Amino acid sequence: MIVVLKKNPDRGQLDSLLQWLEKQNVSVHESVGESSVILGLVGDTSRIDMDLISALDIVDTVKRVQEPYKNANRKFHPSDTVVKVGDTQIGGGNLTIMAGPCSVESEEQIIAVAKAVKAAGATMLRGGAFKPRTSPYSFQGLGEEGIRLLEAAKRETGLPIVTEIMDASQLKYFENVDVIQVGARNMQNFNLLKILGAQEKPVMIKRGASSTYEEWLMSAEYVMAGGNENVILCERGIRTFETYTRNTLDISAVPVLRTLTHLPVIVDPSHATGKASLVAPLAYAAVALGADGLLIEVHNDPAHALSDGPQSLRPEAFETLAEKLFPLHDYVVRMKGETE
Amino acid sequence: MIVVLKKNPDRGQLDSLLQWLEKQNVSVHESVGESSVILGLVGDTSRIDMDLISALDIVDTVKRVQEPYKNANRKFHPSDTVVKVGDTQIGGGNLTIMAGPCSVESEEQIIAVAKAVKAAGATMLRGGAFKPRTSPYSFQGLGEEGIRLLEAAKRETGLPIVTEIMDASQLKYFENVDVIQVGARNMQNFNLLKILGAQEKPVMIKRGASSTYEEWLMSAEYVMAGGNENVILCERGIRTFETYTRNTLDISAVPVLRTLTHLPVIVDPSHATGKASLVAPLAYAAVALGADGLLIEVHNDPAHALSDGPQSLRPEAFETLAEKLFPLHDYVVRMKGETE
Amino acid sequence: MIVVLKKNPDRGQLDSLLQWLEKQNVSVHESVGESSVILGLVGDTSRIDMDLISALDIVDTVKRVQEPYKNANRKFHPSDTVVKVGDTQIGGGNLTIMAGPCSVESEEQIIAVAKAVKAAGATMLRGGAFKPRTSPYSFQGLGEEGIRLLEAAKRETGLPIVTEIMDASQLKYFENVDVIQVGARNMQNFNLLKILGAQEKPVMIKRGASSTYEEWLMSAEYVMAGGNENVILCERGIRTFETYTRNTLDISAVPVLRTLTHLPVIVDPSHATGKASLVAPLAYAAVALGADGLLIEVHNDPAHALSDGPQSLRPEAFETLAEKLFPLHDYVVRMKGETE
Amino acid sequence: MIVVLKKNPDRGQLDSLLQWLEKQNVSVHESVGESSVILGLVGDTSRIDMDLISALDIVDTVKRVQEPYKNANRKFHPSDTVVKVGDTQIGGGNLTIMAGPCSVESEEQIIAVAKAVKAAGATMLRGGAFKPRTSPYSFQGLGEEGIRLLEAAKRETGLPIVTEIMDASQLKYFENVDVIQVGARNMQNFNLLKILGAQEKPVMIKRGASSTYEEWLMSAEYVMAGGNENVILCERGIRTFETYTRNTLDISAVPVLRTLTHLPVIVDPSHATGKASLVAPLAYAAVALGADGLLIEVHNDPAHALSDGPQSLRPEAFETLAEKLFPLHDYVVRMKGETE
Repeated sequence: MIVVLKKNPDRGQLDSLLQWLEKQNVSVHESVGESSVILGLVGDTSRIDMDLISALDIVDTVKRVQEPYKNANRKFHPSDTVVKVGDTQIGGGNLTIMAGPCSVESEEQIIAVAKAVKAAGATMLRGGAFKPRTSPYSFQGLGEEGIRLLEAAKRETGLPIVTEIMDASQLKYFENVDVIQVGARNMQNFNLLKILGAQEKPVMIKRGASSTYEEWLMSAEYVMAGGNENVILCERGIRTFETYTRNTLDISAVPVLRTLTHLPVIVDPSHATGKASLVAPLAYAAVALGADGLLIEVHNDPAHALSDGPQSLRPEAFETLAEKLFPLHDYVVRMKGETE
Repeated sequence: MIVVLKKNPDRGQLDSLLQWLEKQNVSVHESVGESSVILGLVGDTSRIDMDLISALDIVDTVKRVQEPYKNANRKFHPSDTVVKVGDTQIGGGNLTIMAGPCSVESEEQIIAVAKAVKAAGATMLRGGAFKPRTSPYSFQGLGEEGIRLLEAAKRETGLPIVTEIMDASQLKYFENVDVIQVGARNMQNFNLLKILGAQEKPVMIKRGASSTYEEWLMSAEYVMAGGNENVILCERGIRTFETYTRNTLDISAVPVLRTLTHLPVIVDPSHATGKASLVAPLAYAAVALGADGLLIEVHNDPAHALSDGPQSLRPEAFETLAEKLFPLHDYVVRMKGETE
Repeated sequence: MIVVLKKNPDRGQLDSLLQWLEKQNVSVHESVGESSVILGLVGDTSRIDMDLISALDIVDTVKRVQEPYKNANRKFHPSDTVVKVGDTQIGGGNLTIMAGPCSVESEEQIIAVAKAVKAAGATMLRGGAFKPRTSPYSFQGLGEEGIRLLEAAKRETGLPIVTEIMDASQLKYFENVDVIQVGARNMQNFNLLKILGAQEKPVMIKRGASSTYEEWLMSAEYVMAGGNENVILCERGIRTFETYTRNTLDISAVPVLRTLTHLPVIVDPSHATGKASLVAPLAYAAVALGADGLLIEVHNDPAHALSDGPQSLRPEAFETLAEKLFPLHDYVVRMKGETE
Repeated sequence: MIVVLKKNPDRGQLDSLLQWLEKQNVSVHESVGESSVILGLVGDTSRIDMDLISALDIVDTVKRVQEPYKNANRKFHPSDTVVKVGDTQIGGGNLTIMAGPCSVESEEQIIAVAKAVKAAGATMLRGGAFKPRTSPYSFQGLGEEGIRLLEAAKRETGLPIVTEIMDASQLKYFENVDVIQVGARNMQNFNLLKILGAQEKPVMIKRGASSTYEEWLMSAEYVMAGGNENVILCERGIRTFETYTRNTLDISAVPVLRTLTHLPVIVDPSHATGKASLVAPLAYAAVALGADGLLIEVHNDPAHALSDGPQSLRPEAFETLAEKLFPLHDYVVRMKGETE
């Protein structure tokens, strides 16, 4: 952390700042120039609140050099985290494909989709039971009943299930869920993150629509600071000025996070674009640059889906896509292996 | 709502769409051109899910003409909503000034600040007890104890209090709180909104950092659909590419919302900018264009505030500001009255 | 400027960096910590290219402490710049109102509007002759002829004129223009800026739709570095995710620029919002927080304007507005004077 | 185009609107509902200015159904445009790799880089002679001399060259340039676009940092409307709130533009991210989803590059990358061919 002082800082205030910093267990190097004094803070600054320092009268600006997250930081944990879910592994070179409908609508629907996506090669089943909807008048999901239906589909197919939690009070229904998803709108629902950090199931955190990489990793840090290290990150598009697609998929998130963190990174091309026709090309892109997996919406009847129909693939289209994704993944792994 | 069909739509699918629309109680006008067919839907379309229609093979695009919110819509409720809080009224031409520290830190601090802001003319006391913080390692607020201290400050000064709720499970502590604040990060925490709609206390909803006016009003609609019409909106800046200020205050929100809704609109220049030096000019601007109130951070010792120090005013600076805001408000009311 | 080195930097490379820095006339303070070395660069770093340093293998990050602009910087030029235009002064506590149609359409139109806005109190006439239009099929402005018509209106009313230049080749037509406007789309047309820096007429630079304050000031710096210090800045809204308004007016630009630069700052509520109904409230806000002026579109027949009709005021509406703006400005000047 | 009228529109005004529309050669279908009247405009609406209609008192909103561009529109030109440059073809299933330094610095440098990238498989040489730089104090490019050096490199290697034009006055130096690049900051420099439309050399238009797909295609339309159909589009990242990368690469632009237009689409991962380490993964992604080519910065000594060093690859790194990209492209073409 670097603290740039204003010109001619009050010596008394500077001394009390230096004393306070000493108590935080960081050492301070002072660079005195003609027009400015710069303090270089060395040590573990992740627990120092920049705002406390910025508020001082003698301080001009404060800049962080070290990342403010620790458990999620690759610097302190160089090898990839691999999250085990049933027989599946997420991360560590595997390609995880989570597929299924946006909303669970009926037993018939979810079992049909589950069988279809399993046959096509999906490694996990997704489906929404608790649904965050912009309008109070839109279908809000089947709730607990939706989770029961997902469990039935899991029994039928053996696929592990991933579904979204919207509120800590719903945790009691998630006993048989394999991966708990935190949606983009809840990425900074810190109470929820703390409660998920205090339990053991893997947590998949979707990126908030206007969250930076650092804020996203801080949300992972909330879960990890509670003791749960099984965190998966899911890029699902950010909000920009472009409205042709529902969001703008920030595909750079994958290689950037590969550097910053050891956690697995999944890409959701369905929500990112809101258009079924863009799912396949973006899935190819995600696999080519090394994403650990994909989250793809599949519905047996998109035109009558109760939510997010326009972005869902039909099972046949998903099958065609999956048939290409696994070989492409193998090709890319070999390709990269050749010279790296 | 307008539905533009693709060229040469399948007649069977079109008929089933027309039948379904009829069941939704909207009437349909067909415009048949050479290269496209346009359906004009007339009636109450607020409960029709655009996505269901977009997903149909025969549909090119769907555009909404009517707003998807009803309870919050000025068209259906032309006169301003005035929210009564103790002896104070929010909206209806009054200038409400909510002032206080970002975080409640101690009884001494909150009572000192409460007395100071009351003396300066503030009409409500704000203070954070449950604090959403990006880092799990930052001060998280005093929680229930913080609310007890706010209550003490209320007893001491008579100022009604406004404080943030982060999770429905905290509602039990809000018995003596006058206005419940929903923070920007929770603007789309729909479970929380529903629970706040089922109780009677006024709810102040801060705009999400990347939420449109429409999404914001839909969040108000969640509360109102539950039966609670006492909703206040608070603009606190949106996230843009500009990083000099913490957020970008979207001051246009005030006159825009004045047209779209009957609910009162408050402006928070402290969080919007993150800089104490910008609070006064933005407060003048907000009052000049007709905001119903301001939310201003005041701390007796900003340099040692446990959160958001850099954006807090000292009590003396707040007093100087408040002395100008009320007369400015009177001036502006008279000025507008002259010719409107 | 602060340079954070990677762990264990190569000594040879570090020495050659230190030697290079010495040649740039900056002195370097080294802070050596356990896990990082920080170099503090002290002196005039405005001509040092950060990218050159970032590219070095031994460098982790480079952060600028000083602003990269000098001529436009208030630190080196504390008193306000006042731009003289005819009998008018822009900046220095005056309220400049530039009004007129988006496009000059005919002699009759521009003279009628010029007379009307002068009668209402406008201090300058604006009107577009060279028009940047998104579509090649839209009206592109009258060009040279448009400037002739503006000159006629100037002769008729005595109002100084401001109009946009789109390309350096058009400069020959601007002989009788009083202020040359650089549009948002040309804010980083550096060739144009250089040419405008080499002549003497005042230049008004509109902020690019996605330009930061710093980039905007660097564009002013281009003109000033050429020797022309008569630069005016005009905030006209930035591009964000919100599409209800054409752009999002970043009103904070006014107090922020007041700190960073000595140049006058004008606000354009017409282009910022694209809606005539929002012009008056945003104009009040701009005046209240101390903008040096306003740029307002006025058209005698907005419904038949050849460009930007929806955001234009009718002359009567402008008159009503101007009648309020000057007294409001006086009120605000007095109000601020009382305690500052 | 759809025009939604306000409630109870004035019949006289409506009639004059209908007459005006008739003159524009569009036919109008009226849908009369209880609370609104909707006009459906059928025919060629690309030359109708939406703003003219929006400005009318009787009009509530206007929405465009058809795209406002024609020459660039795939609907009117279904087969891919292939741009021929020397022996190379851009588009039509070929993978074009344009490589070279950000700035041309010396004959030695550009010839060394040209030889290296040619040996590695690049099909075109890029290099900046006229350089748009945010700061007037940064290196501005060698100008005409830079173009002479590019010509020398072309003579030496046979590689066609692409370089940026910043102003129409520079066109005289571009006689031996093969593809003229319009930079992101000049995407809406309409004078420049018109002049490039009036000549025959292929034009590559980079996307403006905050330009929508539609605005970008309208800029292509400017060139094409002038008679030059050899237009190439280049995605180079958009400006968002995320500052870790220089820009956010909007990779969805590739499949989206594939649908909207017949023009070739190139991806520039170097400028999009500003980080050399992200170039390879993003290049894989771009090839996997079907981009027509890549623009990659290569410098023989990035640490001493006079501009944009941090994002440049060394020739060896480029060679390693190119060795993978061509086989990956072949693999992807086969993969897609199997089932489409």
